[in-house]
Amino acid sequence: MVELKNLHVFLKSKITGKTLYALPKQWIERSFSQYSGKLSIKDGSYFVDPYEYFSLVIEKVLQNDTGADYSKSLAQLKGEKDASWLMSSKMYGALPRATVAYNHKGFGSFEPEDIFGYRESGTFLKMISLLPYLKNLGINILYMLPISKMSNVFKKGEIGSPYAVKNPIELDDTYADPLLEGIDVQEQFKALVQAAHLLGIRIVLDFIPRTAARDSDLIKEHPDWFYWIKIEELASYKPPYVPELPFKIPDPNDLDIIYSNEEVKRHLGKFTLSPDKIDPEKWEKVKNMGGSILSNIAKEFGIITPPGFSDWVNDPQPTWDDATFLRLYLDHPALSQNYISKDQPPYVLFDVVKSSKFPGNEPNIPLWEYLSDIIPTYQQRYGIDGARIDMGHALPSKLQDMIISKAKSNDPAFGLIAEELEMKNDTKAKSEGYECILGNSWYAVARAREFYKFIEETVPNLVVPFVASCETPDTPRIVYRENGNKLKYLAPALLYLAPNAIPYINSGQEIEEIQPMNLGLDNTIYGKTVLPPNDQFYGKLAFFDYYAMHWSNADDNMYDYLKWLLEMRERLSDFYNGEFRYVYLNYQDGLTANYSFWNGNKGTIILGNLNLAQERYAEIFINETAGKGVKVENVTSINRYGKKRLPLSEINVVPVTLMPGDFSIILINHDI
Amino acid sequence: MVELKNLHVFLKSKITGKTLYALPKQWIERSFSQYSGKLSIKDGSYFVDPYEYFSLVIEKVLQNDTGADYSKSLAQLKGEKDASWLMSSKMYGALPRATVAYNHKGFGSFEPEDIFGYRESGTFLKMISLLPYLKNLGINILYMLPISKMSNVFKKGEIGSPYAVKNPIELDDTYADPLLEGIDVQEQFKALVQAAHLLGIRIVLDFIPRTAARDSDLIKEHPDWFYWIKIEELASYKPPYVPELPFKIPDPNDLDIIYSNEEVKRHLGKFTLSPDKIDPEKWEKVKNMGGSILSNIAKEFGIITPPGFSDWVNDPQPTWDDATFLRLYLDHPALSQNYISKDQPPYVLFDVVKSSKFPGNEPNIPLWEYLSDIIPTYQQRYGIDGARIDMGHALPSKLQDMIISKAKSNDPAFGLIAEELEMKNDTKAKSEGYECILGNSWYAVARAREFYKFIEETVPNLVVPFVASCETPDTPRIVYRENGNKLKYLAPALLYLAPNAIPYINSGQEIEEIQPMNLGLDNTIYGKTVLPPNDQFYGKLAFFDYYAMHWSNADDNMYDYLKWLLEMRERLSDFYNGEFRYVYLNYQDGLTANYSFWNGNKGTIILGNLNLAQERYAEIFINETAGKGVKVENVTSINRYGKKRLPLSEINVVPVTLMPGDFSIILINHDI
Repeated sequence: MVELKNLHVFLKSKITGKTLYALPKQWIERSFSQYSGKLSIKDGSYFVDPYEYFSLVIEKVLQNDTGADYSKSLAQLKGEKDASWLMSSKMYGALPRATVAYNHKGFGSFEPEDIFGYRESGTFLKMISLLPYLKNLGINILYMLPISKMSNVFKKGEIGSPYAVKNPIELDDTYADPLLEGIDVQEQFKALVQAAHLLGIRIVLDFIPRTAARDSDLIKEHPDWFYWIKIEELASYKPPYVPELPFKIPDPNDLDIIYSNEEVKRHLGKFTLSPDKIDPEKWEKVKNMGGSILSNIAKEFGIITPPGFSDWVNDPQPTWDDATFLRLYLDHPALSQNYISKDQPPYVLFDVVKSSKFPGNEPNIPLWEYLSDIIPTYQQRYGIDGARIDMGHALPSKLQDMIISKAKSNDPAFGLIAEELEMKNDTKAKSEGYECILGNSWYAVARAREFYKFIEETVPNLVVPFVASCETPDTPRIVYRENGNKLKYLAPALLYLAPNAIPYINSGQEIEEIQPMNLGLDNTIYGKTVLPPNDQFYGKLAFFDYYAMHWSNADDNMYDYLKWLLEMRERLSDFYNGEFRYVYLNYQDGLTANYSFWNGNKGTIILGNLNLAQERYAEIFINETAGKGVKVENVTSINRYGKKRLPLSEINVVPVTLMPGDFSIILINHDI
Repeated sequence: MVELKNLHVFLKSKITGKTLYALPKQWIERSFSQYSGKLSIKDGSYFVDPYEYFSLVIEKVLQNDTGADYSKSLAQLKGEKDASWLMSSKMYGALPRATVAYNHKGFGSFEPEDIFGYRESGTFLKMISLLPYLKNLGINILYMLPISKMSNVFKKGEIGSPYAVKNPIELDDTYADPLLEGIDVQEQFKALVQAAHLLGIRIVLDFIPRTAARDSDLIKEHPDWFYWIKIEELASYKPPYVPELPFKIPDPNDLDIIYSNEEVKRHLGKFTLSPDKIDPEKWEKVKNMGGSILSNIAKEFGIITPPGFSDWVNDPQPTWDDATFLRLYLDHPALSQNYISKDQPPYVLFDVVKSSKFPGNEPNIPLWEYLSDIIPTYQQRYGIDGARIDMGHALPSKLQDMIISKAKSNDPAFGLIAEELEMKNDTKAKSEGYECILGNSWYAVARAREFYKFIEETVPNLVVPFVASCETPDTPRIVYRENGNKLKYLAPALLYLAPNAIPYINSGQEIEEIQPMNLGLDNTIYGKTVLPPNDQFYGKLAFFDYYAMHWSNADDNMYDYLKWLLEMRERLSDFYNGEFRYVYLNYQDGLTANYSFWNGNKGTIILGNLNLAQERYAEIFINETAGKGVKVENVTSINRYGKKRLPLSEINVVPVTLMPGDFSIILINHDI
């Protein structure tokens, strides 16, 4: 834990006594019951001495030090043998660049770097200072979108996307905080992991094995791990259109059609060998030139890595300009080899991309080794606790196995989250070694009938838990959904308390941020136009542009509400090992979400009125719900307005009135 | 003219034969009747070898070489003694950074610098290549927004505004084209001026003497030319609110109220002496530290230059964060000195800002000399032809005189445009030495009744010409105004053909660009939301963000129309020295704009129907219009659909039907 302690010593030595660093007041008020450092409040903005503030945060974190080695995963620290800790976790999803971005000048506009030397975009140091805020909220997993070195070429907005990975092993330098001058970004990240572990928060990271940035650092040593096309083909490079087929993932018997298509043939003609194969001698010179390796290859060889595209035939989405596919097999897909001429250079096509379905015969073993060593590197260097694997479903199953088994061999309790949006693939994900799926609760919550089915039919039968999200970095914000002012309360309540749920708070959700971070799922292009046009971040998406959340506009209402919900979940935790039962109501309307858990004669019943326009009166039949005779001694009702003991006992029917979009937690014979 | 020729030689020597550089097809088709270089067309995009393309453009320009010294102003070349050339000029207004920005990769997104080493944002080299396009359009003045070194601090968007001038003498380095590696930006600009002069196009630049960037290069040598406040005051720094006064420019008898106000007193308390006065010895060290001078001063002295603000009391607009006022007087305003304590450091307030009205007693002579030497420097180095002076009206009149007289003493025919939006100030502007005012035609055109008055009452009586603009870099685009599909034809027709008009085309107007470059005038915050949200430049403003015009979406219709209008103006040029007469119609409805010019019995009559919803039938009484008996021998009618000889002679009444928003040019006894 030397890194975190070093930070503390360093920061303390730098204290200036000048309060010139503006911070969201939430970071102070939700982290400290009383802040003992210097504080100036001007026009509602909070100003601190940054060295003092960060040193006090770390001091607070270090109070939890029991002398253990917090550089190891929490599972290793605790001697856990499996990742069942995921079952009782509460997750916060962050894109640190945006999550802890703030205009630290306290006036004018947000600038990624400002004249005072403050890094206003997010840093690991600021993530450390957010940990007590998250701890107080009830969070015990901090999930971070990719924090590895991002590429800056072929970018869609102001800055590279975190998913355009230039180097999966290196951390992005912009995450170093210049306040910690002289301490490198690795040390700063180590300190973040240590601080999280001291607070009982696990660190889960996002990894992207299938693609790389167009100018990946890997090109230098392994140009043959990439596909290459002639530069002059770039302008017209796109997935070939195959009019004979619909919009679909190709099947083996589509290959005949695909490869007889003229556009496909022209497409194949665009590819070339890798530069080391074209001219090994020249390559030795070019790889050692200064400047951008991709730029030098483009100039000297006239070739370049192509943009990625979807593995669906006739997918209308444009090419993925900031990413390129890694060459997972040294040969062409086995089923496609008959269609390809002998001298065809390695190429990208729907089948190649979907290598889980169309593998080659010769795995690119050195690449597979490299890819499956990425997570172990983070485990050994930083002691991370878990990972989400991006597009795992598109990987050859053997590669996916390698990635998972290597991670598990280092740390059998390492948590693995599948990027699996289909709830019905829970069994598949489990069989592949994942402990958890992302799922699509964020889709269901915005549609009352779907939400009902989701809660009643899908969730109870899962074989692995799902990430219970009202919103994700890819989706619209819950508060901006239709009836968002009701859904923002109802959706997290029903999701977070549901069986098999891992409550998930999306960065910004707790301050009712309305701007999405990306438009990837369930949104339209208009989704980015929701802020007032005079807002500095109007039209900006955190995935592609600098972005800071609207901390100053926020009151504490949603934070307090979510904190309360997570507490409820925690206090009810014993019940999730009890018996799950649907609730027997006097009638079913398909819009009254309901579930209950029973420990002996103690029951916890949750009802939610998914009708956002109409009040619902319901009667709960206790014996029928419990599936046995239960002597009702007392009934307590909890909703977001408060808790009350109902004047009921020795009855079988509990009457409940739910306002539109409201929910109720009914406790039978116990209290929490 | 060595610079332009050098560029030519350099470019020719670099020709690769590879067509990998995408260009708007308009730049080629409107510049060359036949392009003799290599050209590839892919999916509608035009690709050239950039070295070949630019060398061919310069070759074309050099065909006009008569051996004169094109590094001098055209007026000097021609031996002109006054700036009456402005009277027959046709102006194109450009912000080169955006005007010639283009995604030269030809695929993916626009990037200011790309992996191929292309500078996709505008450069002087690309402005050179636009000159034949402008020449063909009929332009003979290229007016450019500030091209001097821009600041990158306290910026409002992705990049610094051209009005945040870090160094007024130096050109901004981003205007150098990396294709011309090794040739510095000054040489590239010299080549641009030479090329323009070869084509008979004059170069007019925009200068901003009243303010500087917050981190101006001038601070290093002249810290006392700036105002300074304590850093801790920045967060609450704003123009003090004076509830006893309305929203107004202060008068001398408001000073008593202003200076007794408590907020004003607190405001005055925020200022400090300049760093050289606070600690001369320390200053000597700090000024020679590496890195940002302002950052070093902030760190070492705890002081900083304040943002600018309006000279109106109680102006609701926020502070101008990217600019700071220059200290034009060494003492406080003469009329305010009684209110100020002896030890008050130099400060900024409404009176100080409005130094034209509230001068001090001690002009800051070295600064005045510096400011008035800026234009002469550009005259001598580059041979520019004219200048617009920003906020000249807020300068002390003696300083304004110095600026103008120094420019004129170098070049008596140097053109000076006043930033004067009020048409009624034409006399004042003339008396101050300006040849031309900007005016506010862009405001009038969007309002039928105002437009009528503007054409009928304002324009004919001007003592200096005005810039006849339908849109400017600060205003909404004409095509995006209400009824823009009609106004985009009608407004330029009536304006460009009007007396005292200098036809002005705003960069992008000729391709019907809808996104404004700034929201400064006659717009709301919604003005920046006009593009489709999936457009890369949605919500972006060229003043603050990277921006490229939508060349690919444009057809040639508007270019051809504006070209035709400028030709009409040119062919009619003799008439503007003839007699101006209103048109005598059978009735006046206040919406039929009309004017005419007479040379003997030859008349040119212009009618425009400002009613955009209704057709207008009118009868022109020829004798009454001409103010004399005119024997009508032939009548020709021209409108945007064509020209026809009317079957009329020896009559007095010419009947005309104008469709809604249409105009007509009626020629009596002549043809053009």
